[in-house]
Amino acid sequence: MSDIRPIGVFDSGLGGLTVVHELREALPEEQLIYLGDTLRCPYGGRSIEAIKTFSREITTFLMKQNVKMIVVACNTVSAVALDDVMEIAGDIPVLGVVGPGSRAAIHTSVDRRVGVIGTKATVRAGAYGNGIRALDDRVTVYEKACPLLVPLVEEGFIDSKVTELVLEEYLDELIDLGVDTLVLGCTHYPLLAKPIHRVLGGRIEVIDSAWWTARETKQILTDRNELAVTREGHDRFYATDMTDEFNRQASIFLRGQMDAIIEIDLHNELNEIQ
Amino acid sequence: MSDIRPIGVFDSGLGGLTVVHELREALPEEQLIYLGDTLRCPYGGRSIEAIKTFSREITTFLMKQNVKMIVVACNTVSAVALDDVMEIAGDIPVLGVVGPGSRAAIHTSVDRRVGVIGTKATVRAGAYGNGIRALDDRVTVYEKACPLLVPLVEEGFIDSKVTELVLEEYLDELIDLGVDTLVLGCTHYPLLAKPIHRVLGGRIEVIDSAWWTARETKQILTDRNELAVTREGHDRFYATDMTDEFNRQASIFLRGQMDAIIEIDLHNELNEIQ
Repeated sequence: MSDIRPIGVFDSGLGGLTVVHELREALPEEQLIYLGDTLRCPYGGRSIEAIKTFSREITTFLMKQNVKMIVVACNTVSAVALDDVMEIAGDIPVLGVVGPGSRAAIHTSVDRRVGVIGTKATVRAGAYGNGIRALDDRVTVYEKACPLLVPLVEEGFIDSKVTELVLEEYLDELIDLGVDTLVLGCTHYPLLAKPIHRVLGGRIEVIDSAWWTARETKQILTDRNELAVTREGHDRFYATDMTDEFNRQASIFLRGQMDAIIEIDLHNELNEIQ
Repeated sequence: MSDIRPIGVFDSGLGGLTVVHELREALPEEQLIYLGDTLRCPYGGRSIEAIKTFSREITTFLMKQNVKMIVVACNTVSAVALDDVMEIAGDIPVLGVVGPGSRAAIHTSVDRRVGVIGTKATVRAGAYGNGIRALDDRVTVYEKACPLLVPLVEEGFIDSKVTELVLEEYLDELIDLGVDTLVLGCTHYPLLAKPIHRVLGGRIEVIDSAWWTARETKQILTDRNELAVTREGHDRFYATDMTDEFNRQASIFLRGQMDAIIEIDLHNELNEIQ
């Protein structure tokens, strides 16, 4: 049996398209519906209360699209508002990127010393630290906020001396602490994989939460017997604000073709739902 | 006669506190009411339509506070939505930071070659270029978007090698174009005055729009006979979202003491007004 309902994916902005990229690789037959809250991004520096409100609004919108599962591609939301998403999603499974990243870190770290880099909100919430310690309390987790990496990626400073200097400033502390595994706890960071590997110098394993999230999504749908066997329709991309810049950024994160992004007014959409 | 009504000041976030700093220096008897839209900042990369909507909402809120003048401390809003602010302000004078900065550039440039640095939205709108050419069409204006400077300031990378490298990347082009005057077209940039002067090497005059805006505000209130002779009350600071981080940043921008920031829900406030 083929469950042709789409998978809903959302992020504060367009960075979550790195998760869409991995989902497409792992699940080419699935239709995806993506929402990027570009009107209010970035979430990383906002209050937890604000992030919870935004997450509830977006989940309500996705539920209206008859999705069979929700993937929270935003580390910040996964860190502080996954309960809110789950509450609104009801029986539909919800997977945030923090869980798969944490589980992968446990399996990878030999010395049980894990570093995590992410936005301020993700680190402030201690999401990966709590997630990893809940699985194995012998693991020591060092979390480091790296707020400059998102703007550097968005401005295309990827293979740049500037980015390498900033990465050194952020990562040297984690290297000195002796971590053997580093979790990329933000959707933007996989695009910095090359300079990150250069700064780490081959001594540390790097965990890409997006890749592991796609793998677990496939597992969940398989277990529930809800995989799509044949693709029903094109993926749909929504954003709450649009500029030409966003189109350019989207293609960077997605690393591939995408249909036009549709601009929506989330408050209007939700009023219609009520 | 002393006009004790407050002056309303707003910005997309907390950067506009650099304008408050200058207003306090120039007009110590005036009470100020500041609103920073920290829930939706930064505006710099958003669509013009979104910026117009936000500006109308904030102006409506400030008018409710019985202000005698509105200072738009946000270069982005001054660039793309000043008309919207004026429409709602009615008879109350409105001053954006772009006008004073443009006028100062005209008076300063000897070779009639002016460089402007700002956010993407400010540069995309060509605000300073249009403003300066409207005053003197013999002046050539080169505008350059520098989107990394705001996050660098907010993360405290002020006297840092990283910031100097980024500034070189942005400013070398303007230096090569032979500008003799550089307008700091973003509220955050005055905090980078030192590294900017270092990169420019003393060859170029730097215009701080915030300083000129405070000077013109004083002139407007003097002309209208609406100056406060004695201070009536404390300044009030509102923000649409609050974290500890914002308190830290506020003190950087304000370079001085401030009362507690009051968090408000702008949509609730506006519903009450209607």
